[in-house]
Amino acid sequence: MTLTITTYDWVPDMPRGHVRDLRIRWLLEELGRSYEVDTVPLRDKTPEHVARQPFAQVPMIRDGDLSLFESGAILLHLAEGSALMPEGDDRALTVQWLIAALNSIEPWALAWFVAKFMHEDEAAAARHEDLLRRRLSQLQAALAGRDWLVGHGFTVADLLMADILRLPAARGMLDDLHPLAAYLERATGRPAFAKALADQMAHWAAADARQANPA
Amino acid sequence: MTLTITTYDWVPDMPRGHVRDLRIRWLLEELGRSYEVDTVPLRDKTPEHVARQPFAQVPMIRDGDLSLFESGAILLHLAEGSALMPEGDDRALTVQWLIAALNSIEPWALAWFVAKFMHEDEAAAARHEDLLRRRLSQLQAALAGRDWLVGHGFTVADLLMADILRLPAARGMLDDLHPLAAYLERATGRPAFAKALADQMAHWAAADARQANPA
Repeated sequence: MTLTITTYDWVPDMPRGHVRDLRIRWLLEELGRSYEVDTVPLRDKTPEHVARQPFAQVPMIRDGDLSLFESGAILLHLAEGSALMPEGDDRALTVQWLIAALNSIEPWALAWFVAKFMHEDEAAAARHEDLLRRRLSQLQAALAGRDWLVGHGFTVADLLMADILRLPAARGMLDDLHPLAAYLERATGRPAFAKALADQMAHWAAADARQANPA
Repeated sequence: MTLTITTYDWVPDMPRGHVRDLRIRWLLEELGRSYEVDTVPLRDKTPEHVARQPFAQVPMIRDGDLSLFESGAILLHLAEGSALMPEGDDRALTVQWLIAALNSIEPWALAWFVAKFMHEDEAAAARHEDLLRRRLSQLQAALAGRDWLVGHGFTVADLLMADILRLPAARGMLDDLHPLAAYLERATGRPAFAKALADQMAHWAAADARQANPA
């Protein structure tokens, strides 16, 4: 059954390597599952796009007859039954940490990033930075003495948490949090991550080439 | 098997009716499942609390040997196998909308609320309000012609989305969005919601009485 990831046709330099189809590509590399890539315009959102993704974002997937959005939901759907989704109580704990990544870490990382680097609102950025630092320290404390969030192995929760940590890490927020930075390096040191990132960057390079030489 | 919800021992007036154990109580009323209530101090966080909830928040549950946090993960765990979690492709769509509530609606509702009513930062509040309004309009458009988010019945995704919409609704953000306000009323008009809300409010009333007459 063909699996298709939908991402943007082109993005500027800044978000390259961070567009959320990356986390889906990473999981599919971990699972050894092949996929195709489809695109929607970044500008001029189409009715077809909004019909599949009400917030007009990416990624979406098509898996047989199913069209799905929200990267967290796509990860849960695709990880089902694989080694990256344990069974029993560890299954509930994996879902718990995946949702902690989406609801307790990512919103504060994004709010901080947007206030500081997009709106350059220093007062708002300082408030968000305090909160984000506290959350990151708490996450680091929860990881004390463990390689991964759940049990003894890498799960889909680690994959998502690591991808979310990459944004604050790239702007220095993990510089004083060595164990958390080491956790991020353990995760992104996996060959599947490197392959997924290279494939996303190649997608943008091909988009640039198409713009330079329209058919 | 005893199920225990852990919430705070006391909170000030403002968050009463919005502390997130409400959504767990609501689901358990929908399922007709009994539960006990345990508490942790709101102030003076204990090491035992942080060991179970790294961000020192509530709710948590104990379900047999399992201790779980993140309200979204608790809802998914408890809804498993019930009428509020459909099967097949509708299962993936229910998870999708539950995660949309947690990652695409709630963060922006909270950011707006905190900027406007806690920090009284008008510039930040205006930015967040624009974004939240757009998301709420997009959500309303996605619900056009439907009573519920997935298929033909009320699911755990509607329960969570409705609970999240209550905060912006209480501050007038749904006043111009009549279909979305009607969706919220459909959800919160359910007897299970009224019971859960009454039980949470009774919990705070008992906390006040304990403070007034310490044992």
